[in-house]
Amino acid sequence: MNNLVCLSVDAMGGDHAPQAIVDGVDIFARQATGKVSKILLHGQQEVLLPLLAAAPDAASICEIRHTDSYVSMTDKPSQAIRRARGSSMWNAILAVKKGEADVAISAGNTGALMVLGKVLLGMVKNVHRPAIAASWPSPDGYSVVLDVGANVVCTAPQLVEFAILGEAFSRIAHQKASPSVGLLNVGTEDVKGNDIVREADRLLRGAGLELNYAGFVEGNDVSLGRTDVVVTDGFTGNVALKAAEGTAKLAAYVLKESLMSSPMNRLGAFLSQGAFRKLKDKMDPRNGNGGLFLGLGGLVVKSHGNTDGEGFANALRVARRISAANYMDIIQQNLEQFAKHQKLENQ
Amino acid sequence: MNNLVCLSVDAMGGDHAPQAIVDGVDIFARQATGKVSKILLHGQQEVLLPLLAAAPDAASICEIRHTDSYVSMTDKPSQAIRRARGSSMWNAILAVKKGEADVAISAGNTGALMVLGKVLLGMVKNVHRPAIAASWPSPDGYSVVLDVGANVVCTAPQLVEFAILGEAFSRIAHQKASPSVGLLNVGTEDVKGNDIVREADRLLRGAGLELNYAGFVEGNDVSLGRTDVVVTDGFTGNVALKAAEGTAKLAAYVLKESLMSSPMNRLGAFLSQGAFRKLKDKMDPRNGNGGLFLGLGGLVVKSHGNTDGEGFANALRVARRISAANYMDIIQQNLEQFAKHQKLENQ
Repeated sequence: MNNLVCLSVDAMGGDHAPQAIVDGVDIFARQATGKVSKILLHGQQEVLLPLLAAAPDAASICEIRHTDSYVSMTDKPSQAIRRARGSSMWNAILAVKKGEADVAISAGNTGALMVLGKVLLGMVKNVHRPAIAASWPSPDGYSVVLDVGANVVCTAPQLVEFAILGEAFSRIAHQKASPSVGLLNVGTEDVKGNDIVREADRLLRGAGLELNYAGFVEGNDVSLGRTDVVVTDGFTGNVALKAAEGTAKLAAYVLKESLMSSPMNRLGAFLSQGAFRKLKDKMDPRNGNGGLFLGLGGLVVKSHGNTDGEGFANALRVARRISAANYMDIIQQNLEQFAKHQKLENQ
Repeated sequence: MNNLVCLSVDAMGGDHAPQAIVDGVDIFARQATGKVSKILLHGQQEVLLPLLAAAPDAASICEIRHTDSYVSMTDKPSQAIRRARGSSMWNAILAVKKGEADVAISAGNTGALMVLGKVLLGMVKNVHRPAIAASWPSPDGYSVVLDVGANVVCTAPQLVEFAILGEAFSRIAHQKASPSVGLLNVGTEDVKGNDIVREADRLLRGAGLELNYAGFVEGNDVSLGRTDVVVTDGFTGNVALKAAEGTAKLAAYVLKESLMSSPMNRLGAFLSQGAFRKLKDKMDPRNGNGGLFLGLGGLVVKSHGNTDGEGFANALRVARRISAANYMDIIQQNLEQFAKHQKLENQ
C-alpha cells in the first residue's frame, strides 16, 4: 500500500472559494509532509497565483491546472451537467478517472458533484445508487451517518448497500476495527417503521454479510453513539443531520445569552473558557467535515459548501486517509455476497 | 367561553406512574386554582389513595375513578386494544366522549392511546389521520412540529391537514397570533424533495386556506424557529425530534466533562451555574411536554412516557389551555375549505 497520494482539488467550489480552499490546502500542507505527493489545484490561474503567493506551504505542494469555467453553487444539477465540461469541478474528477490523482475534493454544488461523479467515474460494481456519508459527533468520536442527501427515496436493497459502504468508511475515516451498524427507525421493536426499513432489517440479518449489524436505532442514538454507523434514506438523514446542527446552534446561543446576563456569570464564563472551547470543537460541524460520496467508481470527497480553511483542511485529511486505505477492496466482498443473495432470492 | 375545565387523567400510564402522575397533578393543582373544576383520576384506588394522602393539593381537586386494569407500556397497539376496555386509559378517554371531562391526559403507551382515541372519539370531520404535535425549543419559545410519530407514511393531503391542525395548536399552546407554517424538506428550492412534499407544497399554496404558509424549511430551521409550525411525516418528524434530543444530551455531556476537567473550569462553572440552569431549562424536553393528538374527535394530550411530576404538570397545563380555547372551532373553517378544494380538484 502506497501512502503517498495525490489529491485533486476543485479550487472554485464553495461559498468562500477560492480563498477558503487555498487556506485549507495551506493548513493541510503543513501537517501532511511526506504523506502526499502533490495537490492538483483546478481553477483560474490568475486568481489562484496571488493566493498561493501568500500561502507558501500550499504553493510548495500545489500544481495549478488552469480552467476559466466553474459550476456555480446555485446551478441545478441538470444545468450543471450541461455547463460542466471543462469546469474546475469536472477537471478535478477527471484527474481521478485518468489515474493522475487518487481522490477528488470539492466544496461546490452537491447535486452537480454527485452527477459529475456518476457520469465520469460510474458506479462501483453491485452498487445501484451513490450515498453521501457524514461524520456526526458522538461521545467517543464520530458516528458515520448515510445517506444524508443524495437519495430522497431509497429501496431496502439500497439501504443494505449503504450499510456496506458506510461500514468501510467508518473503518477508514474513524479507525474502528469492527464498526457496529444500525438502521434508523422510529423505534427499536421489529414491528416499528415502514415497509422499507423492515425489509432492509430482514436483509441485513439474513444476507450472510460480514457486518456487525445491531438492528434498529432511534434518532437520539445517533448523537449518543449507540452504533458506529447509522443507515437511513437521504431525506431522513438530511433532515436529522440538519436538525442536530440547528440544536447545537440553539444550545450555543442560549448558553451565550445566559452567560452574558450577569457579572457573576461573565466572570465564571471567563474562567471556564477552556471548557467552552472544547464544547465548541466537539459540536463544530467543520471538524467532521469531509463527507464521502460512497459507491462511485472513484473517490470523491464533499466538503461543506460554507466551510472555511480549517474545515476544508479536514476534508483533505479525510480524503488522504481514504485514498491511502484502499476503500474499494474493503467493500468488495460484502457487495458481491449481497448481489449473490439478492439474485438467489429473486429467482 | 368557560375557562373552568375538567381534566381526565390516566393515573396508571407512564414509566413512573402512578407516583409521577400524582406529583404532576399536585404541582399543577397549586398553580391552577380557579381554572379547573376538577380532575378525574383513573386507576387503582388502593394505590392512589395513599399517594393522594401525601399530596393534599392534588387530593383537593381529584376524584378517583377506580379501575384495576391498565394498558402496559410494552403492549403492542393490537394487544392493547383487545385488553383495553375498562382500563385506566380507556376510562380517561371515555370520560371525554361522555362529556364528563374536556380533555384526557396520559403518559402511557403512545400507540395504544392513539388507537383508543380513534376508537372512542372518532376523527374530526375532514381529517383522515391523527397526528402527534410536539413543542420544540426555539430561541423565542417553542415551535410546533408534527407529525412526530403517529404516521410513518403520509400522503400530501394529510400533510396539508397537519398544517391546519398544527397552526391552531400553535395559536393556543404558544399564543402565536398568526403562526407561520413551514414544510420540512431537504432544501428550500422548489425542485427539492420527494413527490409527496412537492405536492403538499402545491396544495398549501393553492387551496385557498387561511394560513401563513412560508414554504419549505430545512432541519436546522426547526431549532432556529424559522417558522412557528413545521409539518412533516411521522417517520421524519420522530427521527428529527429524537436527533435533536440526543444532540442536546451530547452537548450537556461534553460541557459537563469539560467543566470538571480542571480546578479553574470548576470554579468558573460554579460562578456561572445560573446560566447553566437556564440552558438546561431551555433544552429540557419536560418543559415542552404535552403533545396533542391532533385530529381526534375529542382532546387527548400525550405526555412523555418517562416524565416526572414537573413534566406531567406541564402536560396538564397544555391540556387546560387547549380545552379552554375551543380548538375544534379554530380548525373547522380551513378543514372545510380544504375538503372543498380537494373535491373540486378530484372531480
